[in-house]
Amino acid sequence: MIKTDILIIGAGPTGLFAVFEAGLLKLKCHLIDALPQPGGQCAEIYPKKPIYDIPGFPEVLAGDLVDNLLEQIKPFDPGFTLGERAQDIEKQDDGSFIVTTNKRTKHHAPIIAIAGGLGSFEPRKPMIDNLKAFEDKGVEYIIRDPEVYRNKKVVIAGGGDSALDWSIFLSDVANEVTLVHRRNEFRGALDSVEKVQELKNLGKINLITPAEVIEVQGEDKLTGVTIKRGEEKINLSVDHFIPLFGLSPKLGPIADWGLEIEKNAIKVDNTLDYQTNIPGIYAIGDVNTYPGKLKLILCGFHEATLMCQSAYQRIFPDKRYVMKYTTVSGIDGFDGSRKEAEKAVVKAIQ
Amino acid sequence: MIKTDILIIGAGPTGLFAVFEAGLLKLKCHLIDALPQPGGQCAEIYPKKPIYDIPGFPEVLAGDLVDNLLEQIKPFDPGFTLGERAQDIEKQDDGSFIVTTNKRTKHHAPIIAIAGGLGSFEPRKPMIDNLKAFEDKGVEYIIRDPEVYRNKKVVIAGGGDSALDWSIFLSDVANEVTLVHRRNEFRGALDSVEKVQELKNLGKINLITPAEVIEVQGEDKLTGVTIKRGEEKINLSVDHFIPLFGLSPKLGPIADWGLEIEKNAIKVDNTLDYQTNIPGIYAIGDVNTYPGKLKLILCGFHEATLMCQSAYQRIFPDKRYVMKYTTVSGIDGFDGSRKEAEKAVVKAIQ
Repeated sequence: MIKTDILIIGAGPTGLFAVFEAGLLKLKCHLIDALPQPGGQCAEIYPKKPIYDIPGFPEVLAGDLVDNLLEQIKPFDPGFTLGERAQDIEKQDDGSFIVTTNKRTKHHAPIIAIAGGLGSFEPRKPMIDNLKAFEDKGVEYIIRDPEVYRNKKVVIAGGGDSALDWSIFLSDVANEVTLVHRRNEFRGALDSVEKVQELKNLGKINLITPAEVIEVQGEDKLTGVTIKRGEEKINLSVDHFIPLFGLSPKLGPIADWGLEIEKNAIKVDNTLDYQTNIPGIYAIGDVNTYPGKLKLILCGFHEATLMCQSAYQRIFPDKRYVMKYTTVSGIDGFDGSRKEAEKAVVKAIQ
Repeated sequence: MIKTDILIIGAGPTGLFAVFEAGLLKLKCHLIDALPQPGGQCAEIYPKKPIYDIPGFPEVLAGDLVDNLLEQIKPFDPGFTLGERAQDIEKQDDGSFIVTTNKRTKHHAPIIAIAGGLGSFEPRKPMIDNLKAFEDKGVEYIIRDPEVYRNKKVVIAGGGDSALDWSIFLSDVANEVTLVHRRNEFRGALDSVEKVQELKNLGKINLITPAEVIEVQGEDKLTGVTIKRGEEKINLSVDHFIPLFGLSPKLGPIADWGLEIEKNAIKVDNTLDYQTNIPGIYAIGDVNTYPGKLKLILCGFHEATLMCQSAYQRIFPDKRYVMKYTTVSGIDGFDGSRKEAEKAVVKAIQ
């Protein structure tokens, strides 16, 4: 059982910044995210795209924003349960909660902060009869660790950035990379499309278009796929089949936690602390809704901050502690690190 | 008469960022600030101090944050009335407002956003009988333009960072710099104290301590001061006397605008849009108060954003426009500039 002060569901920018504000109040955080790395859609969907409306950044790449936030929260040493989806919640007699993931990892905390963005990202899957039987046995929808594919035979399906970028990357790792797409045209960054063309010309990527994978074969694990191009059927012996048809956000099991939901978002009390209808459970960032809500990262930062202050009062009803200017107070990390503005000296001049 | 869509009172970080969010909605802004430059206390009081709690910046100097914000809002070309304090407000029949400064500059706008921080910074003044008579005639409490002092004789009074830093700076500009302080000990950054010691040793700063300026003399303008050190009285012939005893924030004339005030801050409706009790007047950042308010820069950014959305609805009640992700929409500057994420191409690979 993982124990923490604030269990944050969703490791996007809002969830990550909550770790910082909680840390200023000496509260520990642990984050659960269905994606294999922190950063939410900034890291998974558009890491190389610029964001223009983060205050103080005329322009910042989404991936760099995530890196900066990870650096900023490092002193507060958050825990992570990645690649797992928060599934069940049980309220304990003392008002605390136990949250269990789809892989049965259990987390215990007095405070839950749902920072789930648009929901947990679920892959769109091709319609192939027995596909489900091979999931995690050669069929993967998200690449968590590229090393898994070293010296393997891999078929990637899809026509967007993910399919292009992973084909390029794995062409150096895997033994054989085949890229299958329903059309001849790919949609993505110009340099990715051109790079795939180049690798195809060099024979480092096999391109099969316009085509579809229509069957998967194997016993315990995947051993082959059948690809249909026009009337032609191609049987390929492969170790992995990776359909990259995009991720679609779903609120998922959280929708059944008894929270008040409106327009696929969680209603919160914006008059005070972004708490949901269940005391002790907050919702911050794009996942929440309230009158005048704007789904912007900078709003999530504010909501995370007020949430942490309220969480502190809930955990320590008798203590009084209000966020101070960090310029004055400095930052004390849980690892004993300290950052602070240079102190003034008092010194005679003679 | 200066005309704009949103008149922002206070050019600190919150006021500056409001220009950006307004710009996304194609609303023009003009800012009034009592200080001679934008940035509020970040620029005037602690430009060289690090801030640790701006999301995405593990550490940023206050002055750099201001520079970044100025860069970020540049496409939206804000107007500035600097070195003047907003003083009077008159509501017009059409619901718009005319705001007049202490120097009688008039501004007309349908929306007022008070982003006044802790108030307008008023200098602490020494108790010298006829000091007021020489204000702006040789007596200044804030240095607006150091060139005013070129080849002049200057007396600076004070024992903190401002007195130290300006003595150092003006020792290269003025003909003669005398630094007067009540004690022998100065309080400031170590290297500033040491630099003043060094310039004193070189004869480039005259140091008179422990001492006080007790009289000022002149006819139309200042020509001399009297300094008291113990029982000794020193008469100095000078062009400028600059007491740098710190700035103290005061809500000032805004307190008389009929706004609901609580604990020296302006009450706003945090359930929706940070509007005050006077429709069309908003208060954002440290100057406002509401249940659970935290006086943090990042909260001001959020409040500014929701305020702009509400202002837009007020100006255009029949239009519907909600802030979009800038990664998707890009940024259109009022100067015709455009920033946007690189577009995906659709291209065949053969």
